[in-house]
Amino acid sequence: MTLNFAILGAGRIGQVHARAVAGTPGARLVAIADPVAAAAEVVKAAYGCDIRSIDAILASKDVDAVVICTPTDTHADLIERFVKAGKAVFCEKPVDLSLARVAACLKVVKAEKGTLMVGFNRRFDPDFMAVKAAIDAGQIGAVEMVTITSRDPGAPPHDYITRSGGIFRDMTIHDFDMARWLLGEEVETVQAAASVLTDPKIGELGDYDSVNVILRTASGRQAIITNSRRAAYGYDQRIEVLGSSGMVAAQNHGEHRMTFADKSGFHDAPLLNFFMTRYIAAYANEIAAFVGAVQHGTATPTTGEDGLMALALAEAALKSVAEGRSVKLSEVM
Amino acid sequence: MTLNFAILGAGRIGQVHARAVAGTPGARLVAIADPVAAAAEVVKAAYGCDIRSIDAILASKDVDAVVICTPTDTHADLIERFVKAGKAVFCEKPVDLSLARVAACLKVVKAEKGTLMVGFNRRFDPDFMAVKAAIDAGQIGAVEMVTITSRDPGAPPHDYITRSGGIFRDMTIHDFDMARWLLGEEVETVQAAASVLTDPKIGELGDYDSVNVILRTASGRQAIITNSRRAAYGYDQRIEVLGSSGMVAAQNHGEHRMTFADKSGFHDAPLLNFFMTRYIAAYANEIAAFVGAVQHGTATPTTGEDGLMALALAEAALKSVAEGRSVKLSEVM
Amino acid sequence: MTLNFAILGAGRIGQVHARAVAGTPGARLVAIADPVAAAAEVVKAAYGCDIRSIDAILASKDVDAVVICTPTDTHADLIERFVKAGKAVFCEKPVDLSLARVAACLKVVKAEKGTLMVGFNRRFDPDFMAVKAAIDAGQIGAVEMVTITSRDPGAPPHDYITRSGGIFRDMTIHDFDMARWLLGEEVETVQAAASVLTDPKIGELGDYDSVNVILRTASGRQAIITNSRRAAYGYDQRIEVLGSSGMVAAQNHGEHRMTFADKSGFHDAPLLNFFMTRYIAAYANEIAAFVGAVQHGTATPTTGEDGLMALALAEAALKSVAEGRSVKLSEVM
Amino acid sequence: MTLNFAILGAGRIGQVHARAVAGTPGARLVAIADPVAAAAEVVKAAYGCDIRSIDAILASKDVDAVVICTPTDTHADLIERFVKAGKAVFCEKPVDLSLARVAACLKVVKAEKGTLMVGFNRRFDPDFMAVKAAIDAGQIGAVEMVTITSRDPGAPPHDYITRSGGIFRDMTIHDFDMARWLLGEEVETVQAAASVLTDPKIGELGDYDSVNVILRTASGRQAIITNSRRAAYGYDQRIEVLGSSGMVAAQNHGEHRMTFADKSGFHDAPLLNFFMTRYIAAYANEIAAFVGAVQHGTATPTTGEDGLMALALAEAALKSVAEGRSVKLSEVM
Repeated sequence: MTLNFAILGAGRIGQVHARAVAGTPGARLVAIADPVAAAAEVVKAAYGCDIRSIDAILASKDVDAVVICTPTDTHADLIERFVKAGKAVFCEKPVDLSLARVAACLKVVKAEKGTLMVGFNRRFDPDFMAVKAAIDAGQIGAVEMVTITSRDPGAPPHDYITRSGGIFRDMTIHDFDMARWLLGEEVETVQAAASVLTDPKIGELGDYDSVNVILRTASGRQAIITNSRRAAYGYDQRIEVLGSSGMVAAQNHGEHRMTFADKSGFHDAPLLNFFMTRYIAAYANEIAAFVGAVQHGTATPTTGEDGLMALALAEAALKSVAEGRSVKLSEVM
Repeated sequence: MTLNFAILGAGRIGQVHARAVAGTPGARLVAIADPVAAAAEVVKAAYGCDIRSIDAILASKDVDAVVICTPTDTHADLIERFVKAGKAVFCEKPVDLSLARVAACLKVVKAEKGTLMVGFNRRFDPDFMAVKAAIDAGQIGAVEMVTITSRDPGAPPHDYITRSGGIFRDMTIHDFDMARWLLGEEVETVQAAASVLTDPKIGELGDYDSVNVILRTASGRQAIITNSRRAAYGYDQRIEVLGSSGMVAAQNHGEHRMTFADKSGFHDAPLLNFFMTRYIAAYANEIAAFVGAVQHGTATPTTGEDGLMALALAEAALKSVAEGRSVKLSEVM
Repeated sequence: MTLNFAILGAGRIGQVHARAVAGTPGARLVAIADPVAAAAEVVKAAYGCDIRSIDAILASKDVDAVVICTPTDTHADLIERFVKAGKAVFCEKPVDLSLARVAACLKVVKAEKGTLMVGFNRRFDPDFMAVKAAIDAGQIGAVEMVTITSRDPGAPPHDYITRSGGIFRDMTIHDFDMARWLLGEEVETVQAAASVLTDPKIGELGDYDSVNVILRTASGRQAIITNSRRAAYGYDQRIEVLGSSGMVAAQNHGEHRMTFADKSGFHDAPLLNFFMTRYIAAYANEIAAFVGAVQHGTATPTTGEDGLMALALAEAALKSVAEGRSVKLSEVM
Repeated sequence: MTLNFAILGAGRIGQVHARAVAGTPGARLVAIADPVAAAAEVVKAAYGCDIRSIDAILASKDVDAVVICTPTDTHADLIERFVKAGKAVFCEKPVDLSLARVAACLKVVKAEKGTLMVGFNRRFDPDFMAVKAAIDAGQIGAVEMVTITSRDPGAPPHDYITRSGGIFRDMTIHDFDMARWLLGEEVETVQAAASVLTDPKIGELGDYDSVNVILRTASGRQAIITNSRRAAYGYDQRIEVLGSSGMVAAQNHGEHRMTFADKSGFHDAPLLNFFMTRYIAAYANEIAAFVGAVQHGTATPTTGEDGLMALALAEAALKSVAEGRSVKLSEVM
């Protein structure tokens, strides 16, 4: 049975998901919605789908599932409306910037026995999946220390920063999810440090651009996350997990694998520039996993609860920076 | 203007090209032909094209271009028929196992002012293109020595070997083309050594599985090619070019970039297993280049003459092995 | 002028320094002292020096400089005695486990206008020196984030742990010094997390085996240090510095550079097993730098104050773990 | 029992061996001989040995072994004289440029039951030893193809070229020895191509600077050697061996392991510049192996016969270039 999709929002991430849906066996892109007509036209032209309003999609009999790529402050409402309409919902993170609103939304999803998958694309990256598989296969023994390096090539526009909830909620949130996934145990305490080093305007907007976080579980496992909004050499995405009998790590991806050598040494390409190219395979695998879960009636591999937990970690990190102390996750939930 | 394609032959390489055509902007897959109905059905199911006979395709007004993926001994005839019918032709290497037949075919193409591109997919690999671009940009100065390592993960079926013309004509032919492309000067002499090391049956069939070749141009530039039909660790595809002021090289591609370390050391993935996965991007770029050349009426980046030259080098290598001496290319053309 | 050395203490690190002194042009190993006769004999046999008592060395006219490799609790006294005797002193870190005792000792050195170099060998590692040189040359712009990964292959004997002052004072102390050196600005606040994951006995002894630390300077530069007493794959020693326009990193050293590939993938050697082999060149450079400073009457590249600062950072880290909060360095000094 | 050495010749390679002897447990450097007094003084100053004439060394009771580092045309005579005097002899390759003279010399050594080790330092490089050990342990199954890349950073002085016997006899000779060692079977046929690409004067002197060689054994194993007198990026020394079930390779050594990344990509150090730094460990291991063989009365790991065989391969390669054909080794021996 083919799963018919509509995508809500034809911006950058909407286009990423449109390509993923169009390329997934068993999935079909039926409609795109966006208040900006030109954006919707781009998707229509590329994949031959209809342009419809959100309300029309809600009422569409030929739409089984939606991918929500609209601005964050619309996510929770849309999830509730579409779940109530019986559509399977894939929503980009975060569900909302407010933990309480997220919790309320998840309650509705649960009451409706709805299907909600929250987009944490990195869990579907082939290298990171290989890391996780090695851990699950016992290759490194017991997990002890997780190290996540995540640096964007450059900061987003200033107006995005004012809407995004800040670096912990829009950028580190991915790393919080990765840390939970890799630690295999919930985080108990959060310690964070934050600075403004790349652009003073970011500070004026009340945000940070350079942060480090230490997460600790009840049994003493730890994760460190290091983030920067700027890396001259490209989109730096590395994970490393130390265990009792070994270590696994995922390396970066360069633009190509050509090496040039001269009297000054050996030269390799900079890293793939950003998430649209770095995580092409991850986005494709993510949608395929959603399709599979819906078709087989199984649990989605990432859930609304995962979205809630990652957001709570962001909240705790902010509190740790503000109060200069280690914060228990239980303090914010 | 969209270019409408038919693919002749729905075997392994036909399916590779069907995927490439289907994914190329400006190209549309209209029809597939194959005497084996089940094979044609696979392509039809995947890309929603018609199944037609070769004769029907020849007569189809809605077909602008064909990709010839049939057995080698049909290539030259099909090229001539389709060129005469006014279709643009992309043909898998080699045009024929006989140099004379190739030359005759190219004469027909020329007389008809037809468009013929011969498939040397590696020229379109992003890493190899980066190597070539670095050379053309003068980054390594004058080209001096080319080293090509090309090893298949395993030998083809025995019956393929009897039809393929042997290792120099079906495998090394790609490396001969790469060498010509990278040397930037035609080869003058060929020296080759050949052995049967992986499977005695290959020897009984009159072929070799392990060969080394030295090519030398008039100005003294040299290329060495090392081939094996077997590499336990995957599909080994490396090129390296030494110049007067530097070196460029293209590295292999592993199955993933996850590294596992334990007390025995560090462990990385084996190489991508074969050409269908290793050269996905190359096949896509190759078809896109063909589409571009046809649409803009420009020369195709690889030509029938390239096919002829690579085949002549294979001929010279065979002669070198047989006679234990350095063979001039002019001896076989 | 040749500088004549005596080494106090013929244990593991004493032997490392004996080899370094013996191999340094301009230096000569005159005497070794150790209460364990057999240990002293080993050094005598290898380098042909005298065995003398510490008191005899103190009185030796033919000894210009001493390298103190005795147990930590004797360091401060020996420094004071030898400085007063007019000998140049190289002392292994730490000067003492008590910050007050260190400060008092440094006061004596200053009053005597003595020469004291404290051993932070990593500053003299060729790779780390290249990292520092790249930073100093402005290659990465302004320093923003330092990442130090330091993992021992295995924990020291339990009785060493009871004497060493614990992981922050005996192991992380090296990383604290590296962080100060690379940040180029003094640390203001320290946040640390600590666990016992590799051996419960370590916890019973009041120590930790797995720690992460975040250091932050007044201008917002940050360093993270990740330590473990156990790494199955060898002695893991990496540093990485992110700057405004680039990044520099020093890679690990394997036992050899042979790669083996088979159907399971590519396999490289584990890391050099421990500091005696990993830092051979660093120890040699360190002694050479000491010899140069003494011969030219210049400042030693590492000083008693460096020892004091690194110890204060350890103190602050311990306090951070105990109190679950960010600790200002000024609180402990 | 300590083995007392004299070194004949205090040039570049003589100094390399002086350092190796001085640093080898069980060896002692007693004397140096060189007609150039200043050169001998350098060694004397560095290692505290005597300066003696060759005749004096021949008569010295306190000299057990000599290392011959004099010009090539003196090697055979010196070997014969010192073997007759009962000294163990280590001689730099080649024994002589004439195969007949080498054979005659080896006959004398045999008649005198003398000890002669010919210097093929690369067999003692730790990485190459690891490659050989992996082969001998059966890790790659049956050896099939050996690939040796050997490029000097720059050509030697023109007058050296006139005396050295040319690139095959002074440079490729090392690779011929490596190929024999790694193939595990004697070479039957040699094919070679040679060019002058880096400096026309080299051609005027009758030599080449860029060569490729294919070696083939009776069972069909093959080795390819690629040489250049110039590599802008340093001293390029790689070996790779393909076997029936895997592959082993030894990587190059950079000047350091610091990586710098910026918007143009990742940058690593050039290779160690030349054999004195690249093969420090190999030269030390080589002398240690000689000392061990003499002390235990066992066979030296490399012999006069190894020198003879490598020279014969050079002879065959020259003949192959001159006659444009595959040459049997039996034709030149």
